[in-house]
Amino acid sequence: MNRLEQYIKEQSIVLNENVLKVDSFLNHQIDPELMLYIGQVFAELFSNAGVTKLLTLESSGIAPAVMAALEMKVPLIFARKRKSLTLKDNLYTEQVYSFTKQEVSEISVSRKFLTDDDKVLIIDDFLANGDAALGLAGIVKQAGAQIVGMGIVIEKAFQPGRQKLLDLGYRVESIARVASLKNGEVQFAPSDYSDKLNAGPLQS
Amino acid sequence: MNRLEQYIKEQSIVLNENVLKVDSFLNHQIDPELMLYIGQVFAELFSNAGVTKLLTLESSGIAPAVMAALEMKVPLIFARKRKSLTLKDNLYTEQVYSFTKQEVSEISVSRKFLTDDDKVLIIDDFLANGDAALGLAGIVKQAGAQIVGMGIVIEKAFQPGRQKLLDLGYRVESIARVASLKNGEVQFAPSDYSDKLNAGPLQS
Repeated sequence: MNRLEQYIKEQSIVLNENVLKVDSFLNHQIDPELMLYIGQVFAELFSNAGVTKLLTLESSGIAPAVMAALEMKVPLIFARKRKSLTLKDNLYTEQVYSFTKQEVSEISVSRKFLTDDDKVLIIDDFLANGDAALGLAGIVKQAGAQIVGMGIVIEKAFQPGRQKLLDLGYRVESIARVASLKNGEVQFAPSDYSDKLNAGPLQS
Repeated sequence: MNRLEQYIKEQSIVLNENVLKVDSFLNHQIDPELMLYIGQVFAELFSNAGVTKLLTLESSGIAPAVMAALEMKVPLIFARKRKSLTLKDNLYTEQVYSFTKQEVSEISVSRKFLTDDDKVLIIDDFLANGDAALGLAGIVKQAGAQIVGMGIVIEKAFQPGRQKLLDLGYRVESIARVASLKNGEVQFAPSDYSDKLNAGPLQS
């Protein structure tokens, strides 16, 4: 069991068969050491991919992604869900449906930060139906940049997101893969991280 | 000039006399090395304050605050601007007016992550009128916790936020203090960081 899986086992709350609450360490309260670990894992998994930029979605993607950016020594861009006075023109935009908020939102990235020279790693905190990842991929494609893969913190392996992304030819790496939340219990599927890296220095 | 002031000098865009655009390194694209530097500065400035938790506001506060949390070895909480399926009950809430979005939003923190034992450092990316900092302070006060201070990345020293916070007795530390944006140019006031720490290992 990798360190993230241990956190999930010990600290997450299974709200129902579809919803896992990880607000004590990932998406409300944040454990910074765990974020560093996640960043190190992504950096290791994508170390030979020539990544020039990371792209995530506000807000919960930012903490793990900024640690990955630090490890990989590349800038991070976070797509914004709402326009502001200082971000309103010259944007790439995509529509994304959020399951947890039950609404469609428009996500945006300024055109000046993505070019057709970029090799982009997309990072997100959750992969469920794949909507956020596909929205981010759409933005990268609008820029004419290359998508080197998707780095997912927690994948709900019982939902169709991963297969959709694989069918489109994307590389998907998830640090924890939740196979089931039935009976109030978290069951894991083998994670990309556990599969590919055995007993590395990061594993506890 | 500290490292953040250099970034502002070289990479920010003065939109008008009130608005400074720092989306190339802080609040849209993020420079992770700069975030680490900012985290180190906050950790140094508040090293003797006994901080048990950091509190910031999504989204732009998260990247600098998670680096400060890593350096200080304490958890970070980010207040949410919108409720979601997994965060809707048992909340501390405050109303906050956003100048850049020109609207009032409700910010929330789950009650389970702040208690009256906590000593909280509030971190935010900008201090202008002080509305966000005061909203966060209101949440800490609802919890009965102690506010040890406000760590601000960029202060607009020509707006009244700092004085409001000082008048209420809060300790305010800003890494960069912008004195004026007149004539399309950034003028700095002496920053808390430059004042208090001379030629430390972090300064470039």
